[in-house]
Amino acid sequence: MARPTPLSGFPEWLPAGRVVEQHVLDTLRRTFELHGFAGIETRAVEPLDQLLRKGETSKEVYVLRRLQEETAEGAADERSGKGDKQLGLHFDLTVPFARYVLENAGHLAFPFKRHQIQKVWRGERPQDGRFREFVQADIDVVGAGELPYHFEVELPLVMAEALGELRSIGVPEVRILVNNRKVAEGFYRGLGLDDVEGVLRSIDKLDKIGPDKVGALLVAETGATPEQADACLALAAISGSDAGVAERVRALAGEHGVTSELLEEGLVELSALIDAAAVRAPGVVVADLKIARGLDYYTGSVYETVLVGHEQLGSICSGGRYDTLASDGANTYPGVGLSIGVSRLVSRLLSAGLVRSTRSVPSAVVVAVTSEETRAASDAVAVALRSRGIPVEVAPSAAKFGKQIKFADRRGIPFVWFPAGVGADGEVVAHQVKDIRSGEQVTADPATWAPSEEDLWPRVVPAGE
Amino acid sequence: MARPTPLSGFPEWLPAGRVVEQHVLDTLRRTFELHGFAGIETRAVEPLDQLLRKGETSKEVYVLRRLQEETAEGAADERSGKGDKQLGLHFDLTVPFARYVLENAGHLAFPFKRHQIQKVWRGERPQDGRFREFVQADIDVVGAGELPYHFEVELPLVMAEALGELRSIGVPEVRILVNNRKVAEGFYRGLGLDDVEGVLRSIDKLDKIGPDKVGALLVAETGATPEQADACLALAAISGSDAGVAERVRALAGEHGVTSELLEEGLVELSALIDAAAVRAPGVVVADLKIARGLDYYTGSVYETVLVGHEQLGSICSGGRYDTLASDGANTYPGVGLSIGVSRLVSRLLSAGLVRSTRSVPSAVVVAVTSEETRAASDAVAVALRSRGIPVEVAPSAAKFGKQIKFADRRGIPFVWFPAGVGADGEVVAHQVKDIRSGEQVTADPATWAPSEEDLWPRVVPAGE
Repeated sequence: MARPTPLSGFPEWLPAGRVVEQHVLDTLRRTFELHGFAGIETRAVEPLDQLLRKGETSKEVYVLRRLQEETAEGAADERSGKGDKQLGLHFDLTVPFARYVLENAGHLAFPFKRHQIQKVWRGERPQDGRFREFVQADIDVVGAGELPYHFEVELPLVMAEALGELRSIGVPEVRILVNNRKVAEGFYRGLGLDDVEGVLRSIDKLDKIGPDKVGALLVAETGATPEQADACLALAAISGSDAGVAERVRALAGEHGVTSELLEEGLVELSALIDAAAVRAPGVVVADLKIARGLDYYTGSVYETVLVGHEQLGSICSGGRYDTLASDGANTYPGVGLSIGVSRLVSRLLSAGLVRSTRSVPSAVVVAVTSEETRAASDAVAVALRSRGIPVEVAPSAAKFGKQIKFADRRGIPFVWFPAGVGADGEVVAHQVKDIRSGEQVTADPATWAPSEEDLWPRVVPAGE
Repeated sequence: MARPTPLSGFPEWLPAGRVVEQHVLDTLRRTFELHGFAGIETRAVEPLDQLLRKGETSKEVYVLRRLQEETAEGAADERSGKGDKQLGLHFDLTVPFARYVLENAGHLAFPFKRHQIQKVWRGERPQDGRFREFVQADIDVVGAGELPYHFEVELPLVMAEALGELRSIGVPEVRILVNNRKVAEGFYRGLGLDDVEGVLRSIDKLDKIGPDKVGALLVAETGATPEQADACLALAAISGSDAGVAERVRALAGEHGVTSELLEEGLVELSALIDAAAVRAPGVVVADLKIARGLDYYTGSVYETVLVGHEQLGSICSGGRYDTLASDGANTYPGVGLSIGVSRLVSRLLSAGLVRSTRSVPSAVVVAVTSEETRAASDAVAVALRSRGIPVEVAPSAAKFGKQIKFADRRGIPFVWFPAGVGADGEVVAHQVKDIRSGEQVTADPATWAPSEEDLWPRVVPAGE
């Protein structure tokens, strides 16, 4: 077998990189659970017809087929409906969660808060920050019949806290940009523009083509007058992280004679989020009224998150409010949630050299082996240390001690333990442990010695440290 | 959307079941890391030609296709080699690990110890304990060029310890059954039987058809004399967990005039494993010379593991030694490893009612909400408790306190916190926390109060507790 090469779009990490990813995942999970989100996991596959209900992503779905079905009969069976139902890999965690809620509604307590950390697959063209297989970490709250607005305030704050917990390892500051469908829709309709989706599609191009061309587009494609187009652009230009945002929108609405209950409802909601965020996550949450992506399917708040200094990477954490996350005819389940693109984040942390792990293996200690005949003595030291929660491995061979120290050094393992025994000239030698960084070597007892808290497990730290 | 139904062979757990699975996964990972195994994760897909190298499983592979390739041109592109390489979902973690080792050999330090906990997929007919999607937890050690035998002793002991750590939650005792290819092959060849694979195939049927029929099969299919067949059956009847095993094999070999260096090498190895296990995991590891499954592709030790009292479930942890886990022409990488079938284990724990979790959500406390106007006061209590590592959620609505207590009770959350405020008759009321199991309610300070260690997080306990 020749040396295999990576598959584009399917990222994998070396062990040191996986330490970073695992730390990120553990930190997210802990924060989610401190907020009461129960962890669930769904199967990786869904019936294809379910996956295709969300139109736009249909072309990116990976379809599964059992190899043995690839015969003529198998294919015929499938076409005639006799074979298994066609399955595809899920492309996000929202569609499977909605299905899980419907399937298990009788066994869940609502409002149901869940976190879900899993891989998803999309057959997209791979490029920087876009993968075909990647890990997402989602939180959602779903209600039965109703879901109070305060969850739209709570969820981005949970994400702000989770991402904030990663600052200490070198993750850059984040900005959570928020908008509200009701503000945009209320304003546009109040202006007399009823093609809300059309206006949003144009506004979404602001970053790419600039306000002049967007203004022309609004006139050409949504039938807006130049004045209406200017008003839409003026709304999109408003951003900020205090109560001034709502005031500026109200003033703008006043200038254009816009009165709208929906607009006012949206502004009250947006203000509540901004106010709470100013207390609980100062500087993190910013209202940004040009955010249009997602407003076509979300029904209330919408969120995007950028890494400060890495804005061109795109959003690393997005989501919003759905009035109908799931519905089975009898019941409707509104939801609000956000999803972190963990692979996108970790890939950037590693490729930009922002973080590092202090070592690539769990072991804090290598127990040296004096001779294969006395390997059991080394094993006994390892057992004693592990029983007190210290990660340890025993040297693979009874090589010269210099070589065994090199074994530890190559893996970044800080300590080498020399077990007690009989020395070359017949004298009894006590247990000794060497810090191979400082060279310091001391007598030690396997029943009591421990490394410092800092050296116990690999840690993830900013790359400069 | 009608209520969806489960897909056969794709298990999913309710939140309380997921607490159990997560506890199992966390326990395995911690034990593996205490022994120095570095965690890695590989992509879920491999090129189809790589997956098909291990012949027998070929028909069970799920092949992937992007939906947009399902057009005539796409299919033509693929046939002519212009499209993407055909991909399939991995059916175990060994094939991807071997590929990972070859791909990254220049960046890994050997011997390389890794653990890997991921889902795998097989298009098998679903039945009890056999799934189409399931989680495996693997440990392997791989060497560059050579790998000392002592790793074949170490790895099953790590698994014994990992599974032993689960005893406290109600997982039954396990027996790790071991055999060694060298013993079987040395004995058969010493007897004059050179169709080693043929003999192993017949011996593998012992449990199903019994010794008489296996004896007849050996005569009919491997050309054995009745005496040779009897000798093979006598070898297969030997089992035990002490040095007597090797002695009985040597005596049997003597009776039949068998002398074989390979047999003796195998017996020395098997004895070393049994001796070490008697010290480090008494009663867990048993030499069982009728184990034949896997001896056709493993080259040294082979392992199977049963849950005592649930033997008909089959092996929940299997593996062995490969002399050539991977090879790139220039280098050969021998390995030894075992794989736990986590889904099979967890599914049995849940379906047989062996374990339960103390609650289905992480929260230890629900902070009640007196009125929507004072929700911020409840949020502040939650923030204070979480800052000290206590999982908390805030009540979803300012319902009557009785209803808020019911909210906690339904989820098994032990405490409800009533925030300080102004009472109905204008007096100032202090913070109070109620243990809803005992009804006891005490004044408490959000800056210092904590639940007992036992109530802090959901715990997994034997179902009877």
